[in-house]
Amino acid sequence: MKDVVGSPGTRGGLALRVSQFVCALGSLAAMGSSYGFSNYSAFCYLAFQMTLQLIWSFILICIDVHSLKTNWDLHSTGNLWKYVIGDWLLAMGTMAAASSSTGVAILLETDVNFCRVYPYLSCSRYKVSVILASMAWSFMAASAGSTFWLLVSLSE
Amino acid sequence: MKDVVGSPGTRGGLALRVSQFVCALGSLAAMGSSYGFSNYSAFCYLAFQMTLQLIWSFILICIDVHSLKTNWDLHSTGNLWKYVIGDWLLAMGTMAAASSSTGVAILLETDVNFCRVYPYLSCSRYKVSVILASMAWSFMAASAGSTFWLLVSLSE
Repeated sequence: MKDVVGSPGTRGGLALRVSQFVCALGSLAAMGSSYGFSNYSAFCYLAFQMTLQLIWSFILICIDVHSLKTNWDLHSTGNLWKYVIGDWLLAMGTMAAASSSTGVAILLETDVNFCRVYPYLSCSRYKVSVILASMAWSFMAASAGSTFWLLVSLSE
Repeated sequence: MKDVVGSPGTRGGLALRVSQFVCALGSLAAMGSSYGFSNYSAFCYLAFQMTLQLIWSFILICIDVHSLKTNWDLHSTGNLWKYVIGDWLLAMGTMAAASSSTGVAILLETDVNFCRVYPYLSCSRYKVSVILASMAWSFMAASAGSTFWLLVSLSE
């Protein structure tokens, strides 16, 4: 079994998945508990994307734990393709959600001063949620990159 | 010379670069001619990113035309790495700019109804600019993908 740091079925891979799960959970919790987030399309999209990310990471954590316990080899090419496609699609979606929410959060905070004018808006929670979503994206990108690298090195 | 559709120094690659250049130019023109875009951080970032994209695409158009005229082979591994890194960095930046601007444009148009309340805002131009930037991104992603594919197939 070829080892690339962070690929499926390794301790590094499991750590990346757990980090994604925790960041997505934190981002979703911060967004869900903030006042009036559902008035902003970008924040709704972020919440939807973080839910997808949670489900995907949770399934892969279960598979990784099972694979580490039973020494089940996840590194067949057909299996890796599924990981790569899923990771890339989700990573693109998460990046789009994180960027658009960052744009909206900066707009509310700086450009139109809504945070000062309407103090009941939970601007600090929006910020925490956006930062955690960006962190979830970076862990996702690391997973996607290392799985893709493994796929390329296996097909050589 | 190995041929991958859309890679540097081919007709397809030149067509992709010209498309990027035209879309970035259109996006920048629509944004630059719209009223009050500089009040919104996301739109300023989009304008900055489209300027970078214009310069990058213009340089690569010149190199591609020269390479097609003189049959200069651009497909050395060292050269391709520069293309891939530049393309990926710019593609990520363009995607972030396009998504954040989309978030802000949707917010202005739908969520807070600024477009109806302040009719002097050029909302339709913001929309055109954002759509063209997303198109520029998709052409950029095609270029980055095909160059990366060529790099992988060359190193095998």
